[in-house]
This record gives sequence, C-alpha cells and structure tokens, in this order.
Amino acid sequence: MLRVGIVGGTGYTGAELLRILVRHPEVSLHAITSRSEAGQRVDDLFPHLRGQVDLCFTAPDPSVLGDCDLVFFATPNGTAMQAVPDLLNLGTRVIDLAADFRLKDPSLWERWYGMPHQCPELLAEAVYGLPELNRAAICDARLIANPGCYPTAVTLGLLPLLEAGVVDPSWVIADAKSGVSGAGRKASTGLLMAEMGESFKAYSVMGHRHSPEITQNLAHFAGAEVNLTFVPHLLPMIRGIEATLYARLTDPDVDLDQLYAARYAHEHFIDLMPGGHPDTRSVRGANHCRIAVARPGAGDVVVVQSVIDNLVKGAAGQAVQNMNLMFGLPESMGLESVALLP
Amino acid sequence: MLRVGIVGGTGYTGAELLRILVRHPEVSLHAITSRSEAGQRVDDLFPHLRGQVDLCFTAPDPSVLGDCDLVFFATPNGTAMQAVPDLLNLGTRVIDLAADFRLKDPSLWERWYGMPHQCPELLAEAVYGLPELNRAAICDARLIANPGCYPTAVTLGLLPLLEAGVVDPSWVIADAKSGVSGAGRKASTGLLMAEMGESFKAYSVMGHRHSPEITQNLAHFAGAEVNLTFVPHLLPMIRGIEATLYARLTDPDVDLDQLYAARYAHEHFIDLMPGGHPDTRSVRGANHCRIAVARPGAGDVVVVQSVIDNLVKGAAGQAVQNMNLMFGLPESMGLESVALLP
Amino acid sequence: MLRVGIVGGTGYTGAELLRILVRHPEVSLHAITSRSEAGQRVDDLFPHLRGQVDLCFTAPDPSVLGDCDLVFFATPNGTAMQAVPDLLNLGTRVIDLAADFRLKDPSLWERWYGMPHQCPELLAEAVYGLPELNRAAICDARLIANPGCYPTAVTLGLLPLLEAGVVDPSWVIADAKSGVSGAGRKASTGLLMAEMGESFKAYSVMGHRHSPEITQNLAHFAGAEVNLTFVPHLLPMIRGIEATLYARLTDPDVDLDQLYAARYAHEHFIDLMPGGHPDTRSVRGANHCRIAVARPGAGDVVVVQSVIDNLVKGAAGQAVQNMNLMFGLPESMGLESVALLP
Amino acid sequence: MLRVGIVGGTGYTGAELLRILVRHPEVSLHAITSRSEAGQRVDDLFPHLRGQVDLCFTAPDPSVLGDCDLVFFATPNGTAMQAVPDLLNLGTRVIDLAADFRLKDPSLWERWYGMPHQCPELLAEAVYGLPELNRAAICDARLIANPGCYPTAVTLGLLPLLEAGVVDPSWVIADAKSGVSGAGRKASTGLLMAEMGESFKAYSVMGHRHSPEITQNLAHFAGAEVNLTFVPHLLPMIRGIEATLYARLTDPDVDLDQLYAARYAHEHFIDLMPGGHPDTRSVRGANHCRIAVARPGAGDVVVVQSVIDNLVKGAAGQAVQNMNLMFGLPESMGLESVALLP
Repeated sequence: MLRVGIVGGTGYTGAELLRILVRHPEVSLHAITSRSEAGQRVDDLFPHLRGQVDLCFTAPDPSVLGDCDLVFFATPNGTAMQAVPDLLNLGTRVIDLAADFRLKDPSLWERWYGMPHQCPELLAEAVYGLPELNRAAICDARLIANPGCYPTAVTLGLLPLLEAGVVDPSWVIADAKSGVSGAGRKASTGLLMAEMGESFKAYSVMGHRHSPEITQNLAHFAGAEVNLTFVPHLLPMIRGIEATLYARLTDPDVDLDQLYAARYAHEHFIDLMPGGHPDTRSVRGANHCRIAVARPGAGDVVVVQSVIDNLVKGAAGQAVQNMNLMFGLPESMGLESVALLP
Repeated sequence: MLRVGIVGGTGYTGAELLRILVRHPEVSLHAITSRSEAGQRVDDLFPHLRGQVDLCFTAPDPSVLGDCDLVFFATPNGTAMQAVPDLLNLGTRVIDLAADFRLKDPSLWERWYGMPHQCPELLAEAVYGLPELNRAAICDARLIANPGCYPTAVTLGLLPLLEAGVVDPSWVIADAKSGVSGAGRKASTGLLMAEMGESFKAYSVMGHRHSPEITQNLAHFAGAEVNLTFVPHLLPMIRGIEATLYARLTDPDVDLDQLYAARYAHEHFIDLMPGGHPDTRSVRGANHCRIAVARPGAGDVVVVQSVIDNLVKGAAGQAVQNMNLMFGLPESMGLESVALLP
Repeated sequence: MLRVGIVGGTGYTGAELLRILVRHPEVSLHAITSRSEAGQRVDDLFPHLRGQVDLCFTAPDPSVLGDCDLVFFATPNGTAMQAVPDLLNLGTRVIDLAADFRLKDPSLWERWYGMPHQCPELLAEAVYGLPELNRAAICDARLIANPGCYPTAVTLGLLPLLEAGVVDPSWVIADAKSGVSGAGRKASTGLLMAEMGESFKAYSVMGHRHSPEITQNLAHFAGAEVNLTFVPHLLPMIRGIEATLYARLTDPDVDLDQLYAARYAHEHFIDLMPGGHPDTRSVRGANHCRIAVARPGAGDVVVVQSVIDNLVKGAAGQAVQNMNLMFGLPESMGLESVALLP
Repeated sequence: MLRVGIVGGTGYTGAELLRILVRHPEVSLHAITSRSEAGQRVDDLFPHLRGQVDLCFTAPDPSVLGDCDLVFFATPNGTAMQAVPDLLNLGTRVIDLAADFRLKDPSLWERWYGMPHQCPELLAEAVYGLPELNRAAICDARLIANPGCYPTAVTLGLLPLLEAGVVDPSWVIADAKSGVSGAGRKASTGLLMAEMGESFKAYSVMGHRHSPEITQNLAHFAGAEVNLTFVPHLLPMIRGIEATLYARLTDPDVDLDQLYAARYAHEHFIDLMPGGHPDTRSVRGANHCRIAVARPGAGDVVVVQSVIDNLVKGAAGQAVQNMNLMFGLPESMGLESVALLP
C-alpha cells in the first residue's frame, strides 16, 4: 500500500482526488492538509465522502508529509514550489496539480503567474505528466507537473496532427469551453450561480495562462514554433471541457481517422469516435478523453473535437494515472468507474 | 417626473430596480449610490443596462439624497435604519427593500437580525408594503417596509384562507423554494455555481428570518396566532419562488376558487389559475403572483401553489408598485412587461 | 457469475442498470433487449458505456431471457406483467423496476394505471423490494416489485416515526421534488430543456400514481390508515429527489435522533445527518439515502429531509441491492462508488 | 394600427413574436393560427401571456390572413412557400421567419432542405431581412426572408472586416454556440433536459443548413468567395448565441475598434464593447447584438465575439424590426425592453 498525502484538500481538485483515492486498492491516505480547515472532519466539508473517509484536515506538517511515499499538491499556484525541494530531499515523490512546474522557462512562469519561481533548478527535472506524451519519463520521475485542464484537452486533440506534420503550424485555433468547476472553489462574485447560470461568454481573449503551456507542448512534438490562438469560454454547467480545434492541412491525402487510430492505438484513456460528436457528459466523472476528427466538405480544414472531465483527466484522474505509472501499478487502477449519464 | 435615488445599487435588487425604473415614464434617476463602486459607470457593472442609463455610482451623499422625492434602499439589513430618520426629516419619502422596518416588535428584530434597532420609534409609522393587504396605508406612507420575497409569496397564497377563517390556524405548512438570486450578489463559497448547480436542499429548517415576518402578516389578518412551519429550499436556477402551502379546512363546504376569486377580484397582479400548476417561468421578470388552490381527493387538506419572481414581485417590482401608489400614479405603471418564456 | 438479462435497456433506468452492472464482479450480462433499437450497439446509444459493454440490443426473446438467472424489467408500466408468468415458470427470477407489481390491490392498479392487471394472482407473491423494510422476504423472492423513486424517499423518511407510533397518522405531508430524469427518456414537449430549465412547479397536485404506493407502505408499518398529502414537483436539474416531510408529534418526549439511529443502525445505505441539510448532490450516482430530522422551535412538528438519487436508490441501485440479497451476495456489492460532487 | 397575423404561433419564435407584439403600440393582433392547437386559448399554451392576449388559435384561413396588412410565418421550413404567393397577390406583406426565402439559389435550397422550392420566382424579390445590411430594400419589400439565428450573429460579427477587405477570405472560422431554444419546441428525445442539461457538444460538424446562408451573406459584401468553416454547438441553457469568429488580417495597420465603430455608428441595436467579453445574458430578451473585437498579442489573428438572443435579434425581434421598417414606424418601436439579468 502506498502512503499518500494530499496538501490542500479543500478545493475541487482535492475533493476529486479524495473521491478517486478512497476507492483505490493500493492507496492508504496518510494526511489531508488544509490551513483553513484544520481540525474539521473531511466529510463535514464534503458530505459525499461520508462513510468513505474517516480523517480530519490537518495543518501541513513536513514530518508527516515526509513520511509519505507520494504527496499530491492540490494547492493554489505558487504554493507547491515552496515545499517541494524539502520533500524531494526526504525521498518523498511529488505530483503537483497546480502550475508551478509546468513551464520550463522560469521567466515565462514569472510573467504569467506574477511571482518569481522559488526553485527554478527543479524545472528541468520535473516531468510534464501527460502519459500519452511522456509515459517513460513519468515512470521514473520524482516530480510530476500535472497538466492543466485546457492543455490536456487541446494537446491530446492536436498531438497526432502536429507530430505527423500534416498541418500548417502557423495558424492553429483552439476554441475551448469549460464548466465552472475549472475556476475553482473560491468565493468570488463572478462565479456565483446567479452570475454564471444561463449565460455564456469568452474570457481572457487577450491571453490566458494555459496558452504558454499548450504552446510549449505543441512545439515539443511539432518540432517547430506553433502559432496558436487559444480562446477559453465559460459554460453554464459544472464539469467538462470541450475543445474545438481548427488547423489547415498541408497534406491533402492524409487519412485522418487512420492517423489518430495509429497514434492512440495503445492508449486506454483515449477513445476515438470517427464521425461522432463527443459530448462532455460521456466523460463525466471518468478519466477518458473522447476525440472526433472531421474534414468538412473534404476541404483543407481539419476540425477536431476533444472532450474531457476537467476535474478527472484534466486534474485528479490524470494525477492518479501518473501515480500508477510512478509506482508500477496498472495504469488504470482506481480509474475504471463509468461516466455518469444522464 | 419623480426624482428618485437608489442607495446600494450593486446587488440584484438594485439592478432590478434599475431595469424597471429606466423604462418608467414618470421617473428621473437622480442618484445611484454605492460605497464600493463609487466612480464606476453603472453599465460597466451591469452590461444589460448599456444604452439605458448614463450614470456613475456615487458615494452616498445626504444632500443629494435629500433632494429626491423618493429614495429606495437596496442595501444589506441594518443599513437603512441609520439614514432614514434624517431623510424623512428632509421630506424625502423612503422605500426600504431590506428588513429594517418589517417587524413591528424591535425585540424580534434584534433577535433575528443580531443588532439593536436604531430607530424603533419609526416602526409603528412604517407601512408594510404589500398592496394587496395595505393599499390605503401605502398611499399615504412616508416610509415603506417592502416585504421579503418568501413572505410575499406565502402571505398572498394564504391570505384568503386565513382572512375568511376557513382553516385551522394551529398547523399551517409553507414549503418554499427559491432561485439563488434570492441569496444576493455576495462572494460566498456556498453560492458558487459549482456548489448550487444541479443540486437541491432545504436550509434553515430550524428557523429562518422570514418566519417572524410571515407570522406577523398571518396573525394580522387571521385575527389569531398562526402556528406556521416554514421551510425554505434553494433551487438550482436563478429567478423565481414557488411556495406550496398546506392547511386544514375547518369549513368543508367552502368553495375555494370562489373565495380566492372574490378576495382578489380587483388585484391586477394576482392571477388565479383554477386547476392549474403555475410555474415560476410564467412570472419571470414580471410583477405577477400566480396562484392555484386545490383540494386533493376532496378531503380536508387545502394545497395552495403560489409563484412569484423573487426579484420583481418579491422585491423591486413590488417596490415600484408601492412607489406608484405613494405618488398617485397608475399602480401598474412601468410594470407591464411580459414574462420571459422560455 | 449470475447470468443477467435486461428488458428495455434504452431508458434512464436501463442505462443506469448497465452503468452499475458492467462493474459488478458477479454479473455477466447475457442480453439487453429493446424492440425499437434492436441491432444497434448499446454504446452507440450510450457513449458513456464505450469500452464497457460489447453488446447490441436485441428483440426480446423468451428463450434467451429464460436462460438467465435473473431478468430486470426496465420497461414502461404494464409491460412486465405480460412476460413475467412465463419467465417464473422457466425458473428465472425477476425484478420489475416499473409499477406492475407494486400495488397489492389489483383494482388500485387499474384505477391509477388505466389498464386491467394481467396476472393479479402474482401480486400476493411479489415482494416489495425495499430492503430496509422487507429484507428477509426479498432474499427468498422469485419476483420483486422494485419501489418507485418518490415512495423510496418518502417511506424511508417516515418509517421510524410511523413504526414507533409517535406521530399523528391523520395528517402527514410529503412535499417531494424530483430531477427531470424521473420522467423518463421519452420524446415529450413538456420535458424539453427549453421547457423545464430555469423553472419550477408542482404537478399532479390532485393525485399522483406514487400516492397509493406510499400509502400502502405507510399503512403496512403504521398499523393504521395514514392520511397522506403528497405533492410532487419538478426540479430544473437531472438527478435527485428531495422529500421534505411534515408530521405532528403525539409523543412530545421522543428523542428523534435516537429513534432514527436505532431503527437504521444496521442499514448500510441509510446515512443520518443530525442537524444537517442533506443535498441531492451528496448522493449523485450513489445508492445512499441521507436523512435529517428536525423539530423547529422544539414544537410538535417534525420536519424530515430525505434525499436519494432517483435513478440509483430510487431505481437501478436499489434493484441491484435486491439482486444481491436474492442471490446471497454482499448487499453493497457493485454499489460502492462514491457520489459525484461537484 | 397594423392588422397583423401570425401563422404557426405555437413554437418558440411564435411565442416570442407574441411577447413582443402584445406590447407594440401600433399592432393589432388579428389572427394566430395553428393546425394542431386550433380552438385552444393562446394563454393556455403560454401562461406568461395570461392577461396579455385574449385570442384562441385558429386553423389557417386564407381570407382571414389576406385581410391582414402583414403576416408573420413562424412555421417549419417549407410551409411559408406554399402560402406566400397567394397572400402577396392579395396585397398582404409577409415576413417569413423560416428559411424558405433566405437562399437565392433554389438548388441550394433543395440540397440543404431536402425538397424542391414551390415558388423560386419569388427568391429574387425576397429581401434578406438584416437591417444593418439591407435597410433600404427592407423598407420597400413585400416579402422578407428573416435571417437565421446563427447567420445573424456571425454576419454582424464579420461584416466590417470583410466589407473593408482587411482579412483573408480564404480561411474564416465561426465557432458558434446556441442555447437549446434554437432547436425549437418539438418533441425529440435529443432535446430533453435530461439529455441536454449539464453537457456540451458540437453538432453538424460536417455541414449545417445555416452555412450556405452565412456564406451567401459574406460573399455579398466581401465581393469574393469566402471560405468559411462553421461549427455550431449546443449550450446547456435556453436562450442566447455566442459566436467566436477568427480571421487573419491582411492589413496589419488597421484600427479594428475604429473600423467597427464607423461601420455601426448609426445602428441602434449594435453595441460595441472594446476590450470586453460580451455575455449572452446581457442581451437576454433584448434585440441587441453586442460585439467585441480583439487582436491577441497584437498578432495577425482577429478574434470577434458576437452575442445575441437567438429568439429576439436571431428571430422574432429582428422580424419586428423589419416590420417597423416596412411600415414606416420607428425602427426600435416595441423593442426597447431591457435585457433580463440576472
């Protein structure tokens, strides 16, 4: 059994980690920390966990966390980087669900997150935890930067096209839509149900923090700079991301369905739906990414639809997938629950 | 033209007052105050008002407000009572949309609202602004206590029964459900869309602030103490209240539809739907209260359904209805817009 | 491994049965029938089951069904009663998720469901499948009448009060609210999202089919006629039922929390939340019923809140719980998934 | 007073026409027809119109309709073209809210709508009723083809760019999202709340009927073929369309905000929000189109956000705007109600 700690268990990614880990056959929850809720029972805050977890939140304690095999950070950006070096020195491995170790270039971090990086020397070692891209490196990693939700949906959707070099990298569009749980569990007027319900809008059109992360991914496998326009939108619903991706074919003869099928042939959590229109509810609560590729009018425009649950494949589920790889467990262990539909 | 001021224009009742008043033919908006948003354009905060209102929020200024014929308070509970005495002395009439002047007994106020009353001497003069109950007094009032949203729906639903003395006052049940806008526009984790969406629950089962207000109303026209059990619930939607009310008939021969028709014969904003099931969307954005009375199995239980828009008949619309009465305008002026359905 | 068949697998209860059964360690799905979808892959209709079930819908075939250990009927009311006698004769046990075998009195069936009963001789043998009420009989049953969703929530909420005889049975109120999945997956203008979204209403105030079912349950353990007023409402959300129940105490000294704790001490799927306000999302996708009992103002009115997922404890989950009992499996096998929140 | 008829008053566009027309000071409703609901009171079907309209639906009667100054068709595609020639001969003017007269090329009509056109000779005369594009022609028209909802949002968003020739017409992307009322009020499993709620997906990726309509518009003012990729999506909400539009600048020096301001300087219903993120709720129930233009990173990609209420500016409101123009009334008469927010 793995001894596992969670730092920052009171947000939605923390709650989702708990939902998954309490049923994971190889995990023993050792500590769940929260400065604000220390002393409170976990299931008082999250009644869906009543009968599933018999722990209280505790204030973060390095000796307790250092006693874990693995610690997940489900904290605000900029928190993990303060504690990770010490934990690694104690031999504890780390998966950070925030953005602290995602960008390789510390100046990019500082520009987009508004603070200097505390341990830039770890950025090279940190492994970007997208198993479909980096599986081998993940298995051996001490420190995983768990991908953002939008970057997961967009990267998985575009990967086969850019890796194969069949589209023009100079103009790629990602029009992405997210449920409101992606904005986190923080008191904010703008996230009230009376503000977000029954309405829809784009946001951060001039630039979103996930943009450099996606661009870094795409450049990695495109082998060239990719000129991406990324526009996020907020959906009047709780869970799910859909990204509709547009690119221009440079090779008019490519068989798109075959290209995707070959690339993802051995990926358990990628489900291709040729000719389909994947909906977000088909992955609600599940770790799958469902993808459909289309070429309207047999023209030179490729349209890719990619859906995930932002809290599962876009956060906690992917983190557990990474954990399974790091500790030699079956990759899908604890992640086999069926999506909740309707 | 009436010169009108609004104190506290940044919440949902304030926004709704603006929506109605900008189209009211006899109103000139003189000032909209907000401490927190002073200097900001009103339509920057509320983009639906772009092109409708060309004002900025200002800090509250007694001389500006005293220059109005009427000031609406759309402020948190406990705010109006600090400013009202001075305004009345200046000859400005006041409609308070908060609770400050609703309860006649200052000790009840203190118990339910957790603070001593600042001007208990005005409580006797203040008129409870439910036109269907108090029209004559409203016309002459200097100070109106605009009813709460739940009390409006529940009182209008029960009034004919208790006034006629045909039900047992010793056990009356009000099971009320409200959209989330009723909780106001304040940053609170519990009101996030990710918390309130796709879920339903009761709250304040052990006692809600609107309970003494309703009881005070019912006792008024029942001529006796009414033993009310009031349970509010939160609906996963934005606007609307539905109250399902249960009482026990003491007179088995009463013709309920006739009783209601007679009582509300001249009420423009009460719409009776015999045999119907009024839905909240049928009053969305409108000042109507739609009511249906039923007697399942011809037994001795009366079931009343009463629906309103909590922000209109439950707040801003009723306030404008009161204003019209106070200033001798047609009662429905500015309140004739049709409900938005679907 | 049990060989299991599902008749009518295209509605929401059928889909929910599939979601649960595909992960059940002791079940082998033998056939899923649908007249309308025969030949279509199950996961074409229900994309959340992609990768989970490799079957097509088939036309109902008595020989195939008769080859099963157990057949679930997830069909419209009046369908199961035509096929059940033959299946029982073949030695196949049956759980009917529709209403065909719920009412003991065939004249009540005919009155509420508008058709004569096809096999009234089976009504005495059929066991009402509420394990918390009837566990022993369920274990030995050939034929289970799986309870309705409203009756499950209401009966579990009232059972301790009426069994202990501490409330007046002559006036009990059940104000129940259901998500729209309770109305089934049938093309109907009234169930469109543009009709049901952002609105709320009561329906069937003059009488609902679940009323006689609840009354039959209550009378069973109250040992007396119970005069119930049951008013159902439709919530603008998909899953979940909340019932707020009102009764009048005849014994003012009863300790309500203790009464419920004692009655449900050994019930795995009943979760008591003293002083709480259970929300429907806390049981979304789970087989639990969460209950809170309150006595506002220490008066003589008891208010019970009871929440379930209408498709799980209110239908498919309870059916699997019954199956586990019938075949000597652990009662919660396959039903341990954690509710999805947010 | 204009004598006005509505053919097909039972869908959402019909209901929305009624909501607007009952408050229009120059309109007298002469007839509302519906084959299926003939004889039923209009306000029985649409309770929000109680007290507003005192008519019953009638079966369509040419002599009654021919007695109107203007007839609106709010019918399924292919219905108006059967009745319009006779009405025009009788001197009655017509606004068709369906697609019958939108496409100038009858072969395009046949391909996308699956039936031959009944009166292709009227296609040249029919005026496409987008006032911001065609105001002069609308004033004199006998027959208006009222634009589709998506085409309105997309065309208004792209018009200044293509008219000015500052973007590359060979690759334009329109990623559009609509509330479910856009799919109409017809019984369909796919439109149930339990299917559409809390989920999101693209549809008709390979081609949607509004695509040729948009392309026809764009070519009209671009003076060249425009290669448009149009992908519609369904939002889990009722009203509103947001279109996010992407094009590539050919003139890097253009001042986009100025370009749009100049083009729409005199358009009452176009509201430009430089630097903003228009949300659909800001136009809920209103006839405005709110637009923001952005150029992320000062690069060569233009991102336009365009929002409308699909039932108002996307259907009934625009139809009334056209009516006002046709009959010499102020263009915004009856269309001044403020959007409903929250």
